[in-house]
Amino acid sequence: MDKSALQKGRDYAAQNLAPNLEEILGERYDGLVPDMSESLIEWAYGRHYCREGLDAKTRQLCTIAALTVLGGHTAPQLKINIEHSLRSGASKKEIAETIWQMAVYGGLPAAINGLNTAKEVFEAQETQ
Amino acid sequence: MDKSALQKGRDYAAQNLAPNLEEILGERYDGLVPDMSESLIEWAYGRHYCREGLDAKTRQLCTIAALTVLGGHTAPQLKINIEHSLRSGASKKEIAETIWQMAVYGGLPAAINGLNTAKEVFEAQETQ
Amino acid sequence: MDKSALQKGRDYAAQNLAPNLEEILGERYDGLVPDMSESLIEWAYGRHYCREGLDAKTRQLCTIAALTVLGGHTAPQLKINIEHSLRSGASKKEIAETIWQMAVYGGLPAAINGLNTAKEVFEAQETQ
Amino acid sequence: MDKSALQKGRDYAAQNLAPNLEEILGERYDGLVPDMSESLIEWAYGRHYCREGLDAKTRQLCTIAALTVLGGHTAPQLKINIEHSLRSGASKKEIAETIWQMAVYGGLPAAINGLNTAKEVFEAQETQ
Amino acid sequence: MDKSALQKGRDYAAQNLAPNLEEILGERYDGLVPDMSESLIEWAYGRHYCREGLDAKTRQLCTIAALTVLGGHTAPQLKINIEHSLRSGASKKEIAETIWQMAVYGGLPAAINGLNTAKEVFEAQETQ
Amino acid sequence: MDKSALQKGRDYAAQNLAPNLEEILGERYDGLVPDMSESLIEWAYGRHYCREGLDAKTRQLCTIAALTVLGGHTAPQLKINIEHSLRSGASKKEIAETIWQMAVYGGLPAAINGLNTAKEVFEAQETQ
Repeated sequence: MDKSALQKGRDYAAQNLAPNLEEILGERYDGLVPDMSESLIEWAYGRHYCREGLDAKTRQLCTIAALTVLGGHTAPQLKINIEHSLRSGASKKEIAETIWQMAVYGGLPAAINGLNTAKEVFEAQETQ
Repeated sequence: MDKSALQKGRDYAAQNLAPNLEEILGERYDGLVPDMSESLIEWAYGRHYCREGLDAKTRQLCTIAALTVLGGHTAPQLKINIEHSLRSGASKKEIAETIWQMAVYGGLPAAINGLNTAKEVFEAQETQ
Repeated sequence: MDKSALQKGRDYAAQNLAPNLEEILGERYDGLVPDMSESLIEWAYGRHYCREGLDAKTRQLCTIAALTVLGGHTAPQLKINIEHSLRSGASKKEIAETIWQMAVYGGLPAAINGLNTAKEVFEAQETQ
Repeated sequence: MDKSALQKGRDYAAQNLAPNLEEILGERYDGLVPDMSESLIEWAYGRHYCREGLDAKTRQLCTIAALTVLGGHTAPQLKINIEHSLRSGASKKEIAETIWQMAVYGGLPAAINGLNTAKEVFEAQETQ
Repeated sequence: MDKSALQKGRDYAAQNLAPNLEEILGERYDGLVPDMSESLIEWAYGRHYCREGLDAKTRQLCTIAALTVLGGHTAPQLKINIEHSLRSGASKKEIAETIWQMAVYGGLPAAINGLNTAKEVFEAQETQ
Repeated sequence: MDKSALQKGRDYAAQNLAPNLEEILGERYDGLVPDMSESLIEWAYGRHYCREGLDAKTRQLCTIAALTVLGGHTAPQLKINIEHSLRSGASKKEIAETIWQMAVYGGLPAAINGLNTAKEVFEAQETQ
């Protein structure tokens, strides 16, 4: 029998992100929105990141492109996805290039804010 | 001596897009905005697409991700960049996967509108 | 055993929208994006609209508010959701009031474009 | 004689929000933008919230939906409107459900940022 | 006694735009949203365009800048405001320059879509 | 021979902004994105601000309009451009009027956030 999307998402998160991601989300959000953690794992990881047809690294860089042009209100998600991109094998250079290219499509402010977020993540990792 | 950004952009456009792209833009826009065509070639192609550090295909897929989440008002640009993506070696599958993943970040309407645009481009090519 | 989110979404769509919605989506999108129809039904209807804690009509009006401020690129989705709102028991007046209030938050252009879309839907229904 | 929109807005604010809202706004903004406070009261409350055809609670939840999808730059306004929504009779559950549903239309980052703002407001109230 | 904002808006529209603007808006929208025409005239013209401190032409060019970066979904409003800008004394050149500068802040797609809208308005006027 | 866009941008920045702007940008960003500083100076100042056809002050006010409606994620850029606007001869009143007018097009939250940013800049200057 095929695995459900929820199970696929759980497997993807355990292998690629953090084994306890659903638990962390659940502690933070499920009291307010029942099943939010389960729902997010199923949708984002079970229905998207685990799909075939596009490799994980390119998926991550596309996410970074999108979060950059969506503007600084997505800075928290951009940070997390820069970390996920490094883990998926993208280099700092590839991440920076992806963000800077967005100056063409989303304008300079979005690209500069994105670079500032990337610098913050890279510098935090270096001081660890 | 280093090539200027303008020259790099012209070389990139000639090799990868259309040899007369600057001319087409010039005829359409330079009467209204002097040097618009030159400026666009320099900035988009000479300062971005010809850069090192990220391959052409990934650059194109990131562009598609960005144009998808920016919403349907960028449909004309999304169309052009789907064509450019195919030319850069991306498969239809990779393009469709990129667009659909944006449902997570930009919402379902943006992703569905993006898929509709992709279908239009793919179907137009098949009937050629 | 609890119903899966996918099953809940299918039941919701069958009872409240169109019995063949998944099929229609599948014919249009699954060739390009495998399982897109299933995924949309699961996420939008199984994970959101069928939730407890907020009645269907209010959910629909909130959707209309969101699609209005997101701008005209969501006009196709706004149309569909105006129809769904009427079906959920919202009156034309409530729908129009929801859209117009968005002038405060998303600006006049978004609200006026939203009213134009609503007029189109209402007039199409009257001439049926 | 009909009340002017300005008078209606003043009455609405006095009854439903804060009796001195116009004064607070005036002290903050009128030095920079003469009559800003009067203008805001007239437009937002006299021309929108006091309208017939949609109850106050639904109006507030629609506002929350809009502010959520508009992104985190509206976090200050989202906070204020979560407070206004509670005062209009909406439950925490209804507010959280409204925000989470926006994941479908505005994407996960907007919804998660919205939930974070709601948690902040709810927690601040509990510690009072 | 001071004129009300509504009266100021009516005077501004009559002198600078069209004497029957409120009537046109009323015929189109007031059936759906009672007093929408009055409300729009009061807010946009009585509370904004008639203000002191910034000349009409600069106000109009700022509006064009905003509508350009907000994206193509505001094309109908951009058209109307290009016409209003010409009437307020702005040249075609100033309008085109304003739109093109937005490539820096809103990205190339928004600027190109804006130029396309301007070309359409200018060409329609030339063929009259 | 015509000056290159890069040279024009450098001259513009030296005369109107800060003589060492490219250096500051370079120290911050060029390690991550080679030539970012050069590219930004060329595009923003050499290809846009130094253009003929629209005076510097109006260009700046249009930039403020755009950054206001793009939302609070552009607050850092709005701050810088309010300073540039004052330097280009715009008064505080003109800047505040430009921002407030955006309530019509981008909604009240964007305008209020913009006014808050302006107040911050003006107050910081007064305490110097």
